Amino acid sequence: MADRLALFTGGQFADSHAKTAHGILRYGEREVVCVVDETSAGSTASDVVPYARRAVPIVAGVEQAAALGANVLVIGVAPFGGALTDEWRAAVLEAIRAQMSVEAGLHTVLAEDDELAAAAAASGVELRDLRAAPPGLSVPPAERPDVTVVHTVGSDCAIGKMSVTLELDAAARARGLESAFVATGQTGIAIAGWGIAVDHVISDFVAGAASRLVHDGASRAPLLFVEGQGALGHPAYSGVTLGLLHGAKPDVLVLCHRAGSTDIDDYPGVPIRPLPELISIYEAATSWVDHPAKVKAIAVNTRGLDDDAARAELERVRAETGLLAADPVRFGGDELLDALGLA
Amino acid sequence: MADRLALFTGGQFADSHAKTAHGILRYGEREVVCVVDETSAGSTASDVVPYARRAVPIVAGVEQAAALGANVLVIGVAPFGGALTDEWRAAVLEAIRAQMSVEAGLHTVLAEDDELAAAAAASGVELRDLRAAPPGLSVPPAERPDVTVVHTVGSDCAIGKMSVTLELDAAARARGLESAFVATGQTGIAIAGWGIAVDHVISDFVAGAASRLVHDGASRAPLLFVEGQGALGHPAYSGVTLGLLHGAKPDVLVLCHRAGSTDIDDYPGVPIRPLPELISIYEAATSWVDHPAKVKAIAVNTRGLDDDAARAELERVRAETGLLAADPVRFGGDELLDALGLA
Repeated sequence: MADRLALFTGGQFADSHAKTAHGILRYGEREVVCVVDETSAGSTASDVVPYARRAVPIVAGVEQAAALGANVLVIGVAPFGGALTDEWRAAVLEAIRAQMSVEAGLHTVLAEDDELAAAAAASGVELRDLRAAPPGLSVPPAERPDVTVVHTVGSDCAIGKMSVTLELDAAARARGLESAFVATGQTGIAIAGWGIAVDHVISDFVAGAASRLVHDGASRAPLLFVEGQGALGHPAYSGVTLGLLHGAKPDVLVLCHRAGSTDIDDYPGVPIRPLPELISIYEAATSWVDHPAKVKAIAVNTRGLDDDAARAELERVRAETGLLAADPVRFGGDELLDALGLA
Repeated sequence: MADRLALFTGGQFADSHAKTAHGILRYGEREVVCVVDETSAGSTASDVVPYARRAVPIVAGVEQAAALGANVLVIGVAPFGGALTDEWRAAVLEAIRAQMSVEAGLHTVLAEDDELAAAAAASGVELRDLRAAPPGLSVPPAERPDVTVVHTVGSDCAIGKMSVTLELDAAARARGLESAFVATGQTGIAIAGWGIAVDHVISDFVAGAASRLVHDGASRAPLLFVEGQGALGHPAYSGVTLGLLHGAKPDVLVLCHRAGSTDIDDYPGVPIRPLPELISIYEAATSWVDHPAKVKAIAVNTRGLDDDAARAELERVRAETGLLAADPVRFGGDELLDALGLA
């Protein structure tokens, strides 16, 4: 039976932390029946979040989703800290009892939760933990496959690194290049159907997981677009970012930034460094392990600006950094791809 | 029944990766009956590794350790990758059958291994996983307790950061300062009896684990010496290093280096950056999360050099960096402590 998804966002559909729901709507290939979100219920998804593109209904509860024929409830929020809250647990249990499988990328492992596992067994449905680490992870080998690796890095988390990566891959494939998107987080995995959530593996193995993804990707295509995670200046997630950077050993970096952001979203008061400094920081970090890479372009998330304001912001960033700045989500990935100098 | 330890090193007692055995011998307060190491059997520990200080016998196998009255087998090696090998598994099973508990800081979780768990249950002995993450870890809060945090960082792993941290703490307490050693790895935990192995937690929670240690440490003393892990230039472990650095939010850094090392030990061909550049790298990394700290002194591991050569090497490092350079393991921690400017 094909998946018919209901995307649960716990009242946060309009917020950037609902990026899993947004990403599946925009880039996923599976059928989405509805969004479940009590705050935005009654609207359609693309009206509330234009990025999402699909005009699926937003309903208030799991019961309505089941009535619309959904057979999989997807936790569509990547919450700060990644835990399953009591409120969400109630929704998950309701879905299981309504014969829906549950797919989630939380740090809370659904299948290891006694209450959820018992309920799923009783209903005969699946619990899919997208963040579960594959067996056999370890430290990375010294050598990287002979492929070209493009890696998105950022000024903060939840600013659109995955979207930029997907747009670059789509633009490359549209030109006939053999390329692959390499998912490193739960949303990317939900979209691509493979990958490793590098933020959920044992910290000693972050680089090893990234390296394995590049090795696996090399069997798919000679040009890999590896999704970034977190930010080197993020007080909670910087370790994931650096381990991924060192394990992926990119040839080219794309720096992602959200227009107008001045502080780390999860840590108000911790300033985001100016873009030229961020470029230096990321380039320097690649050189620490003797695999130097350059930032070749800036991807700017201009969500919330009108087209004129967006173009002005891109021009400002170009002047500030001396690099091409583009918003591939708004204007397509071609211009950004050109700037990478891959062909 | 008090622990009577046998330290198992799988033929590697003389190697720096047997740092868990070496650290327990030098700094631990528990009784050590013997070392189990077929390569060095017949010698005494302090003859093979003077750092270890204790003249305990080295025996060839678990059987002899049991005959000497050992009741706990400690895996005394921190192997690259942290897995339990088949050879070690045989020794662990032999120990369990000889009524010995087993203590280990591997990534392989002994208590989750069906064969070992069944054997331990049958013999009525404990399996102690020092690296097991405590429950309830998450991302760090924004605020750090109002204590002074000294943190050791390094040019590579397994070069003596823990020893430097312990020597500084001992020197501080000898002066009547209220201080505490904060263990962040398995050897430190085996010595101190508390701590978190930050390299074994989910990568998203490395900084959160470090932050929790500082909060826990603050209830013990107003001056904390937080053990470092890995190195920012280590291709496998850099993510752990950065997460720990950002979670601990140190006030003062001590850069640790092994005299004469030019490449990352686990990755020959990946050069260690010059010390002045490492100082800049670590200081810059602290500033990324808006909690800048300075490297105040260099701890140089001069093991293998005679006293004159060691003093010459310290003088060379002083000239190269403009900072005090000392080997606290060889000459005591006082000089290094003075350079931190804490009093």
